[in-house]
Amino acid sequence: MEERIKALSQFGANPEGGVSRVAYSDADIQGRKYVMELMRNAGLEVSIDFAGNIVGKRAGKKNNLPSIAFGSHIDSVPGGGNYDGDVGSIGAIECIELLKENKIITDHPLEVFIFQNEEGGLVGSEAIAGVLRDEQLDLISSSGKTLRQGMKDIGGDPARYKEVAREKGDIKVFVELHIEQGGFLDQEGINIGVVEGIVGIKQWMVTFQGKANHAGTTPMNQRQDAMVAAAKFVLETNKIALNTPGRQVATNGMITAEPGAPNVIPGKVNMTLEIRDLDFDKVMSTFEKIKTAAVLIEKETGVTITYKSLTENIPAITDKKVQETIASAAKDLGLTYKYMPSGAGHDTQDMAKIAPTGMIFVPSKDGISHSPKEFTSSQDMANGASVLLQTILLLDKAKM
Amino acid sequence: MEERIKALSQFGANPEGGVSRVAYSDADIQGRKYVMELMRNAGLEVSIDFAGNIVGKRAGKKNNLPSIAFGSHIDSVPGGGNYDGDVGSIGAIECIELLKENKIITDHPLEVFIFQNEEGGLVGSEAIAGVLRDEQLDLISSSGKTLRQGMKDIGGDPARYKEVAREKGDIKVFVELHIEQGGFLDQEGINIGVVEGIVGIKQWMVTFQGKANHAGTTPMNQRQDAMVAAAKFVLETNKIALNTPGRQVATNGMITAEPGAPNVIPGKVNMTLEIRDLDFDKVMSTFEKIKTAAVLIEKETGVTITYKSLTENIPAITDKKVQETIASAAKDLGLTYKYMPSGAGHDTQDMAKIAPTGMIFVPSKDGISHSPKEFTSSQDMANGASVLLQTILLLDKAKM
Repeated sequence: MEERIKALSQFGANPEGGVSRVAYSDADIQGRKYVMELMRNAGLEVSIDFAGNIVGKRAGKKNNLPSIAFGSHIDSVPGGGNYDGDVGSIGAIECIELLKENKIITDHPLEVFIFQNEEGGLVGSEAIAGVLRDEQLDLISSSGKTLRQGMKDIGGDPARYKEVAREKGDIKVFVELHIEQGGFLDQEGINIGVVEGIVGIKQWMVTFQGKANHAGTTPMNQRQDAMVAAAKFVLETNKIALNTPGRQVATNGMITAEPGAPNVIPGKVNMTLEIRDLDFDKVMSTFEKIKTAAVLIEKETGVTITYKSLTENIPAITDKKVQETIASAAKDLGLTYKYMPSGAGHDTQDMAKIAPTGMIFVPSKDGISHSPKEFTSSQDMANGASVLLQTILLLDKAKM
Repeated sequence: MEERIKALSQFGANPEGGVSRVAYSDADIQGRKYVMELMRNAGLEVSIDFAGNIVGKRAGKKNNLPSIAFGSHIDSVPGGGNYDGDVGSIGAIECIELLKENKIITDHPLEVFIFQNEEGGLVGSEAIAGVLRDEQLDLISSSGKTLRQGMKDIGGDPARYKEVAREKGDIKVFVELHIEQGGFLDQEGINIGVVEGIVGIKQWMVTFQGKANHAGTTPMNQRQDAMVAAAKFVLETNKIALNTPGRQVATNGMITAEPGAPNVIPGKVNMTLEIRDLDFDKVMSTFEKIKTAAVLIEKETGVTITYKSLTENIPAITDKKVQETIASAAKDLGLTYKYMPSGAGHDTQDMAKIAPTGMIFVPSKDGISHSPKEFTSSQDMANGASVLLQTILLLDKAKM
């Protein structure tokens, strides 16, 4: 498994040892090709659906039954690492290989999904859940392409993406193996995380409109400096997220200042705001607190602050029965486990709209993720894949 | 004059009605071509020197005398206006035309300079003053090109730029007409500013090195968020410049965050810092105050802050005799005038290293500059050009 993770990491490799394999980039397209080859070699019947997801099918004994589905994604954030998404994708393929080697045919047909553009808003799984909207196709992804163009470039058809939506009942259960991306399993020395639910995420583009002016001739007290307003906003965001009781997090990850020269007072700043919590009401109440603080910033700075909603993912609670199955699989394999929430968003939260779901976490060293320093040991990856396979076999026989 | 300002504004026109004619861009190259044609039509002998400056010469009666020089620049900041530099450049050419029309031959030979890359650090006039250094040629300009490449692209020769340096005594006096870029003349309804001196300017690139991490799984109290540190720095910069007695100004005009995605905590931020004052010790003491505040920010955030010096221009005091000549020219023409400092940097400050200098300011509407909203009326431009011509004629006869 480690070998394949290494091979996949060549596509979009960055100098720091991670990958910048943002969805729709050449590196993404090459990585997808590599993964499709692995899937075909494992005996899967591989296709790219209209939304651009890679789908691998394996027949069961009773093909009138709904499928058991699993998988993850291989796209990364800019400057990302080699494990986020990749462990679940490669792990899913290894499960299929083990079934092949051991000549096991499940009762249910199996489906492996490699979802497109997870990092840019769970685009592929939204299409499968039937919640992707036409207007989202105009959004610009990290690759610089619109989702529409990106979908085309990876072999999808933006005019027909709606056809990939699955009905409730089509999929018996969806299970995703993933690295934790937090530090709890690593700190506590636990093998497996049984995920209880995934936090809701909302992102905004916040625009600060001041007045561009000469940095030498405009006295300090006559400025409408968009950068100063944005700086105050960053600190209010941080303070509110830090001091409100609970587990919410808020981040300003992206910023541009216009016109963007050392000798010009910025007239405009665009900055992203992202808030996450298991309780979506908490996401929105945190946003309201920040907005209230921003009204004062507007008064202090003479800069106007406006918000444009970008992506929104409501929290998703995983299925109790699947949670118990994962826990029992881990136990059977002699692994330690704990129940935990996921602070990161995952394709599983979209799949939860159309099927019972479960997630298996393996440890991330020092909790580092979305960074070239991301690391999960080969033993932990193997543990995760074993729990995934065992879970699938148990769910194949389980009544749900 | 207004017509030519309008013609020049077509090169690099931006949708907001200003220009983005950054040095070495195609727009800059085209604008220079237009200006050289005007200069040739006015009877100047036009050449591009090894540093890339446009130089127009007009013989005098006594060509063994040092030249009387004047001129300005036509490059702009990104998202700039149509008057900064252009008024002095077009005004200088109009003076030559008026001399031609009126068949006036001065005693001294005349030189019109259109300096290259004023906005990116007074590059052209530094070469003429003999203070441009080889290592500066590796700096990246707003066009994305190095100064070396840019110098080549506009017809200079980076291997020989040192040859354009003038000796003290080569130029009798240098005079620059320019828009004020501040609001004092406009607010007070005064026609002409007699510039007493130009502020010193120093620019740094400030780097904030934190730790990139997942925006969902990293609790607020375990982050080393480079954006938060940068935000604190912006507010300290602003507070110190605002609250220290004096006229110093400090600006953070440019910012980038890496990796730069809404769902990743920024691990690194690069931001410019610029400080200006008529007294260079004040520039440095302001910087020291900011640096001291930054040490606390480092402790609070776990983010490391480092500084790289970019450009540095020490204050330049204009010549008393030239100041008086400008004032008397304005008076002769029935115009009101006031003595004032320049908050903006100008090529004149480099020329002051090798010759006595003077500067003539005309009003900027609402003090707006480095913005498409920059505006100077045609009457004010004509006033400025008349004062420039009258000043040259007076200086031609004056002992200095």
